[in-house]
Amino acid sequence: MKQDTYPIIALALDNWNIQIIRATKLLETLSDEQLKKEVAPNRNTGIYLLGHLTAINDAMLPLLTIGERQHPELDDIFVKNTDKSGLAKPLLSDLRNYWKQVNDVLESGLSTISTEEWLTKHSLVSQEDFLKNPTRNKLNVLLNRTNHLAYHLGQLSFLKG
Amino acid sequence: MKQDTYPIIALALDNWNIQIIRATKLLETLSDEQLKKEVAPNRNTGIYLLGHLTAINDAMLPLLTIGERQHPELDDIFVKNTDKSGLAKPLLSDLRNYWKQVNDVLESGLSTISTEEWLTKHSLVSQEDFLKNPTRNKLNVLLNRTNHLAYHLGQLSFLKG
Repeated sequence: MKQDTYPIIALALDNWNIQIIRATKLLETLSDEQLKKEVAPNRNTGIYLLGHLTAINDAMLPLLTIGERQHPELDDIFVKNTDKSGLAKPLLSDLRNYWKQVNDVLESGLSTISTEEWLTKHSLVSQEDFLKNPTRNKLNVLLNRTNHLAYHLGQLSFLKG
Repeated sequence: MKQDTYPIIALALDNWNIQIIRATKLLETLSDEQLKKEVAPNRNTGIYLLGHLTAINDAMLPLLTIGERQHPELDDIFVKNTDKSGLAKPLLSDLRNYWKQVNDVLESGLSTISTEEWLTKHSLVSQEDFLKNPTRNKLNVLLNRTNHLAYHLGQLSFLKG
């Protein structure tokens, strides 16, 4: 069997997709009432984690030079500030739609990135810094975000009955 | 810059190591009293998750043909049965040592696996099934276990004060 880079990229994408599918299934299983609860006492609510994960996925679009952000307005509420900030959150029905919408755009974009391109710098690192540390590439963003998603998925799972 | 498979494997290993370092730091921060608590109401205790993650890491040794298991006795308590099984658990001080010991052996072993070998089958899949589905390789085990570790790390983090 020929062993080039391609199957390795495919594995990384598979692992990302598995987490997205798991998260989406879990979110569909959870009622609005469940998502409004804290995942554990004094921890983030499900709605906050949904918004947080959507914002992080959305930010992958420019980071991987796939395209513009779909919902940059989420950052202030779900990334720069905590769940208890007092900032008004979008409707849960809207957030559920954003999750799907962002992931659809992301999925299409991820499938177009070539093996060579995965090893090029992500958009937030300068060419100079990238030359010093070539691990700051697009594939590393994907692997890192897969772990980040799994981390919060473990927490969201506590909302199940 | 030459773009061969090697930097991709190195990235996957980096991502694994980052999770191990994070988990180890968290475990060192948590007192025995904290680890004995449930991470959320009616969920697993910290001690169960520590044993579970140690057993899963230990099982990677034969899975990646690095070597024999160090602590196969953990499976019955921490993988095949739940936290509330009533089975006697090892001392927490022993479990803390097993975590380090297993990860040390694993770390040495992981560093010896060649790029080509990462794409060969893991030990639990037959040659026949592997030919049908070559994604059932060693690298996939590493990526999958990295996510599994991140998943439970997100839960363990709730034990912090």
